[in-house]
Amino acid sequence: MPAETQRDRLDVVLVSPRNPLNIGTVARAMANFGFSRLAVVAAYAPHWREARSAVGAPELLAAARETETLTDAVKGCTLVVGTGTLTYRKPEQIVVQLPDLAPLLRGEIARGGRVALVFGPEKHGLSREDLSWCHLLVEIPTDSRQPSMNLGQAVAVCLYELASRAFVSDEIPEIADPGKEARREPMAESGRLDLLAGVVEEAMIAAEYSPLPMREANRHDLRLMLRRLGPSERDTRRILGVFRRILWRLKR
Amino acid sequence: MPAETQRDRLDVVLVSPRNPLNIGTVARAMANFGFSRLAVVAAYAPHWREARSAVGAPELLAAARETETLTDAVKGCTLVVGTGTLTYRKPEQIVVQLPDLAPLLRGEIARGGRVALVFGPEKHGLSREDLSWCHLLVEIPTDSRQPSMNLGQAVAVCLYELASRAFVSDEIPEIADPGKEARREPMAESGRLDLLAGVVEEAMIAAEYSPLPMREANRHDLRLMLRRLGPSERDTRRILGVFRRILWRLKR
Repeated sequence: MPAETQRDRLDVVLVSPRNPLNIGTVARAMANFGFSRLAVVAAYAPHWREARSAVGAPELLAAARETETLTDAVKGCTLVVGTGTLTYRKPEQIVVQLPDLAPLLRGEIARGGRVALVFGPEKHGLSREDLSWCHLLVEIPTDSRQPSMNLGQAVAVCLYELASRAFVSDEIPEIADPGKEARREPMAESGRLDLLAGVVEEAMIAAEYSPLPMREANRHDLRLMLRRLGPSERDTRRILGVFRRILWRLKR
Repeated sequence: MPAETQRDRLDVVLVSPRNPLNIGTVARAMANFGFSRLAVVAAYAPHWREARSAVGAPELLAAARETETLTDAVKGCTLVVGTGTLTYRKPEQIVVQLPDLAPLLRGEIARGGRVALVFGPEKHGLSREDLSWCHLLVEIPTDSRQPSMNLGQAVAVCLYELASRAFVSDEIPEIADPGKEARREPMAESGRLDLLAGVVEEAMIAAEYSPLPMREANRHDLRLMLRRLGPSERDTRRILGVFRRILWRLKR
């Protein structure tokens, strides 16, 4: 088996793509820039089948993962990056311009992390709910008169940027002097944050902190906050331990 | 009338595009990144009509120029840049990687020049003949196992690169200290080089330098050489004068 490369540490995730031609051009752009890990969330089955069986479809389409939810698609990733046009809404996360994204991803991968780049459906992009699984948002600097990009072109532009500036060498970089790096560990995987959020919510409910009408909003805010904090796996385990203990006490 | 911006000094030129969907995505990428000058060479009429009349087609498609030949499409440009995959052929021009293109274009525009970015047909890309009108070739750094990009995606990637690194400000930059610039004038327009090439060829024939079986090859080489030399308009006029004089003598 060939050694894992930087590019194997990046997943492209499509949420509910509709147009089979777009799925095909996404796969083509991935092959063009040497990426192979594709996941598709809540695909519309007939179009997904059509895209997969298209003549000349890259191999990576056949190997793509399918999941029902975004939380499943990104659960093994430590840095989840949402894409989209932010002209019409006020984002709840940090926004990074695409030309500035490369060093962030390279850093997370150097620390041993795994990155997901998430693209929304053609018509409306990622929902506020989808975005709450993202640690940060990346914005492609488009013209304000025509900001919204075609899906296949948006993927091509992002992967070009990363291939030419973050993943120039295939090797996974070593951190030159770990003592000098402010943060040495990757962030916890997205699935671990979901687990933690579940326990915290249970504790909040048990402590009667979260009345029923506020529960959805609190869950959303908690998900965002955990991504903002970006705890390592070790810290996530610690916090989990604390909350499990609290929960046990509350339920006694 | 609004002042001319850097982006108005760049023409996107499509040579014989076939797929109307591709023409549409090219126009969309241009609108996304704020470019508006499109020229289409030897378009297949039914597909071109279909693309133009598509619902939601950007305005710039209606305003696109149509020409029969590439020489006509680029005749007003002083720097013509060909695009494509160079894996299967040995180029006759300088090849620049896309991430290194921005300063070259910015420089030519600062000197008062006009730039064309030329894309070939979907199946085979630009021909050797097409490329002979290009001063240089730009290569998108793709994976050697799948080097060939979809047309709309290739245009999107090139315009993203230029919009985020060459045309960041809309103003046409002033050369800070012209005395220090090695070259202060733009290169001659492509149409002027074609005119010069015609006169030189006539002189070569009159001098019996160019036997009939060699004529095509000599014309091709001459076209390339003039782009390599990159004379300014002033020098082009001088050389034209010399050859017109020679021709007049030879024909006496």
